[in-house]
Amino acid sequence: MKYFVGIDIGATKIIFLLLANNKIVKKKKIPTPKTKIAFFSALKENLVLETKPIAGVGIGVPALLDIKRELVLNSPNLPYLNNCPLPQLVKGFLFKKSAVAMDNDANCFALAEACLGAGQEAEVVCGITLGSGIGAGIVLNRKIYHGAYGSGGEVGHMSIKFDGYKCSCGSFGCFEEYASEKFFKRRKISSKELEVEASAGDKKALQLFSDYGKYLGIGLANIVNVLDPKIIVLGGGTSKTSKFFMKSTQEECSKRIISPLAKKYVRIKKAKLGEFSGAVGAALLLIKK
Amino acid sequence: MKYFVGIDIGATKIIFLLLANNKIVKKKKIPTPKTKIAFFSALKENLVLETKPIAGVGIGVPALLDIKRELVLNSPNLPYLNNCPLPQLVKGFLFKKSAVAMDNDANCFALAEACLGAGQEAEVVCGITLGSGIGAGIVLNRKIYHGAYGSGGEVGHMSIKFDGYKCSCGSFGCFEEYASEKFFKRRKISSKELEVEASAGDKKALQLFSDYGKYLGIGLANIVNVLDPKIIVLGGGTSKTSKFFMKSTQEECSKRIISPLAKKYVRIKKAKLGEFSGAVGAALLLIKK
Repeated sequence: MKYFVGIDIGATKIIFLLLANNKIVKKKKIPTPKTKIAFFSALKENLVLETKPIAGVGIGVPALLDIKRELVLNSPNLPYLNNCPLPQLVKGFLFKKSAVAMDNDANCFALAEACLGAGQEAEVVCGITLGSGIGAGIVLNRKIYHGAYGSGGEVGHMSIKFDGYKCSCGSFGCFEEYASEKFFKRRKISSKELEVEASAGDKKALQLFSDYGKYLGIGLANIVNVLDPKIIVLGGGTSKTSKFFMKSTQEECSKRIISPLAKKYVRIKKAKLGEFSGAVGAALLLIKK
Repeated sequence: MKYFVGIDIGATKIIFLLLANNKIVKKKKIPTPKTKIAFFSALKENLVLETKPIAGVGIGVPALLDIKRELVLNSPNLPYLNNCPLPQLVKGFLFKKSAVAMDNDANCFALAEACLGAGQEAEVVCGITLGSGIGAGIVLNRKIYHGAYGSGGEVGHMSIKFDGYKCSCGSFGCFEEYASEKFFKRRKISSKELEVEASAGDKKALQLFSDYGKYLGIGLANIVNVLDPKIIVLGGGTSKTSKFFMKSTQEECSKRIISPLAKKYVRIKKAKLGEFSGAVGAALLLIKK
């Protein structure tokens, strides 16, 4: 049996897991260290803990990457990783110089859900994480689609209203301005807080979720019209409140899909693998190679 | 040497050509017949004209297709083709029951440009036709990307302003409402007429082209953010006036691309193969199989 380590590096926590035969056999969670030195000590320490011979290590990073050159380009939440050749450094920690692969965290999420989660058996899957922003990954035949320059699937920055809100990226009317937590933040609330009110039957709260769902549906329809996925998988913190917005998302999305076949058959599903999806996807980076 | 027939069925003309070794060795243009009977007679007649043994026939159709079931679903300009199993009927006309393939006309355009035109050598090409609407095709490693239900690449119906103009498809703010001839028509002019004024140095005409170019740039940026193509190839009637709008297209597109690599390297080019691109792409449907 081959053992693969998956590491999901998040802004606040790092998840390590050991995957064998597509099953999690061991897992660990640590707080993300605040300095570069502490970060690499933690990485080294948690990797050598494994006594099994490791076939490879996959790393998911919340950052813009140069996939070909194996470089972290820009990690807004972990700036000490900027310009870091992370896979090469991790390779140095490993006894037998096992294979090491790296990808964007949203791509890892999408890969995990496409291979072992809500998108199983579909040749075209788009995995989307709804949180402080919108991350996404496209998986074609169980492989991450990177595009020509490694930025395929940056759907959060599609303009859905070209003269709309200014986005932190400098553009206007980006999808994530309308369908991430930014929607709620602009209204001085979070989806989690609003959920409490909606659960108590508050009409304003329910309407707000319905409005949010519409915006989400608009962007998903764009994705369907361009990519024509079989399944769209929604993950991330905001997706936990999906029972309050999914109906309006489905309705708005359906209205805006041009193909009658896609309109009828495309499925929008909730992610299945929970908080470990990123680390599972990271481990799968190597298994699929 | 193998000979392939490519047929490009347009609303007003049908182009037949014979492709051998990626070169056009014979071509013919006829007006599109007005009735179904006349259409099939014309098809049959022009196919048997070829004395060379034909390895296959590819057909490009201006319609929504069910690729897997080889059916024309909906052809707004040639309604007599609706629900027609075109490839099967054409097969009946051929002496040796050669292979017959069918695809959407914009997909054929994109395939031709990706294999033999402005997109050569690029692994990810998006070919876009700017005309009365916007058609598009995505070509990955010289193969048409169809998506899960055959409608991949319907970029003309991305919402770029979700509360914008109502589109003929029923949705709002579709890309083609802003960046096809519809833009000019709304201003009681065509791009061709406006070109005359712009060529004479008319400032209002130049400004109008610049405005058009911005809208086009917005949609192209969306395509770059989702698909990350290496090259975008622009064809169709409106693209003939590109010298008047390309600068503003490039500028607006660049502003809205999130990835610094894609921003720097993606290329927007004019199509190279001219009016025969659709028929060439149709012939390539079989060569690439």
